Amino acid sequence: MTVKQLSLPALVDACTRLGVPAVGLWREPVAQYGLEATAALVRDAGLAVTSLCRGGFLTALDDGDRARALANNRTAIDEAVTLGTDTLVLVSGGLPPGSRDLVAARERVADALVSLAPYAADRGVRLAIEPLHPMFAADRCVVSTLDQALDLAERFPARQVGVVVDTYHIWWDDRAPAAVARAGTTGRIHSFQLADWTTPLPAGVLTGRGQLGDGAIDFRHWLALVESAGWAGFIEVELFNEELWAREGAEVLAETATRFTACTQPASR
Amino acid sequence: MTVKQLSLPALVDACTRLGVPAVGLWREPVAQYGLEATAALVRDAGLAVTSLCRGGFLTALDDGDRARALANNRTAIDEAVTLGTDTLVLVSGGLPPGSRDLVAARERVADALVSLAPYAADRGVRLAIEPLHPMFAADRCVVSTLDQALDLAERFPARQVGVVVDTYHIWWDDRAPAAVARAGTTGRIHSFQLADWTTPLPAGVLTGRGQLGDGAIDFRHWLALVESAGWAGFIEVELFNEELWAREGAEVLAETATRFTACTQPASR
Repeated sequence: MTVKQLSLPALVDACTRLGVPAVGLWREPVAQYGLEATAALVRDAGLAVTSLCRGGFLTALDDGDRARALANNRTAIDEAVTLGTDTLVLVSGGLPPGSRDLVAARERVADALVSLAPYAADRGVRLAIEPLHPMFAADRCVVSTLDQALDLAERFPARQVGVVVDTYHIWWDDRAPAAVARAGTTGRIHSFQLADWTTPLPAGVLTGRGQLGDGAIDFRHWLALVESAGWAGFIEVELFNEELWAREGAEVLAETATRFTACTQPASR
Repeated sequence: MTVKQLSLPALVDACTRLGVPAVGLWREPVAQYGLEATAALVRDAGLAVTSLCRGGFLTALDDGDRARALANNRTAIDEAVTLGTDTLVLVSGGLPPGSRDLVAARERVADALVSLAPYAADRGVRLAIEPLHPMFAADRCVVSTLDQALDLAERFPARQVGVVVDTYHIWWDDRAPAAVARAGTTGRIHSFQLADWTTPLPAGVLTGRGQLGDGAIDFRHWLALVESAGWAGFIEVELFNEELWAREGAEVLAETATRFTACTQPASR
């Protein structure tokens, strides 16, 4: 999504030229290019697929909506298998129309996981609950903190359900460092994502994820916490940003790679 | 601020006609109308002043900026005395330019309170730390949760420093109900404010505070929690909303009074 202006072949080409070894994919562009074709494209290029984004949206009250959401998530799990990734990111969903009950909505997410988690694990896929920033609690994700995500995940084995640690969503939370340790202890950090917090936020706030280094987040601090918690996997950079999307994609990817190095390498002495 | 389009005399007139017994004031319109004139206006109308908004912005790194902020807060305390309110709301301030250290910024807020809290208490004014929604952590308020506000307040006697419970800022937080109880037990709920959470958020997000009943917040739930915690004071409705500001002020105030009653009265049987 960081460079959604690029076609998948152009993305793979740019990753290869920059030495980016792995990529996180979203379902919509994969469906557009073709699932099998995408799988072949990344496999032939030797690119690892860090995660598939996204399943979830599991808070519906209506039985029909709920059945459709579960079916859609099983499809997403199958897609993850085909793409060769072991991680499906879940965005839990917001409050249904007219509802004001966050607690009940979170419980419906847990109920849905009871059927989805074994289905995923049987196919070698881990579900990764992504807590989204509290500004998304009403309309996108009723799971707002890393601790809430872990409260849900810990009802299941770690190989079935874990969490996404995304700096953008948790950077403000003074309890998040302890939650990162908690996630690491139980082997539940299934994805680690970076984006910077820049202001002012745009209308709708979804496309405010800032380029690394442009905002308020201390990435070395979070990287150290996640590494201390045992993380040794790939790190995803996930930016939604109209200004970046309006620029030439390969240039944005190159800039992002440079920023990534600058923001994550040890401070110079 | 809910009806900032009204002059202070028009506001006082509208409150009187609607039977609104108390009003929260902001410093800027008070300064514009005149401090002593405002004090006389509300006193003569028999209106109580629930709180003065706002002091704070205590996170500066620069010594000069810091001294100016402290002086400005002492002035705000003096203004509260003149207006006849016992509560000054504090918005703590965001990260200084170039800083990414939330912990240190919060500690500078605590340091500032060491000098401001006794000054206020000597004049019969309580400082009320307002946690702002985490979406304001970088640019407006490094205190993002009720627990963080209480962590700061509890370093001081309750008659010196307490907190603001504002539904808009805390509604998403599953730890906030326990924090309300914690605040009540120690006598630190110094203000209780209502606004609804409506989406999509506007650009800059500051003016997204929605009319009561239009959004995701269950006000009866929060009112019950705050009352269980011992709150028996006035309840403030604080809306920042371009659409409401564009309408006739007395009409908006009347609508708000109607919504307040509908959202806070016990559910019909």
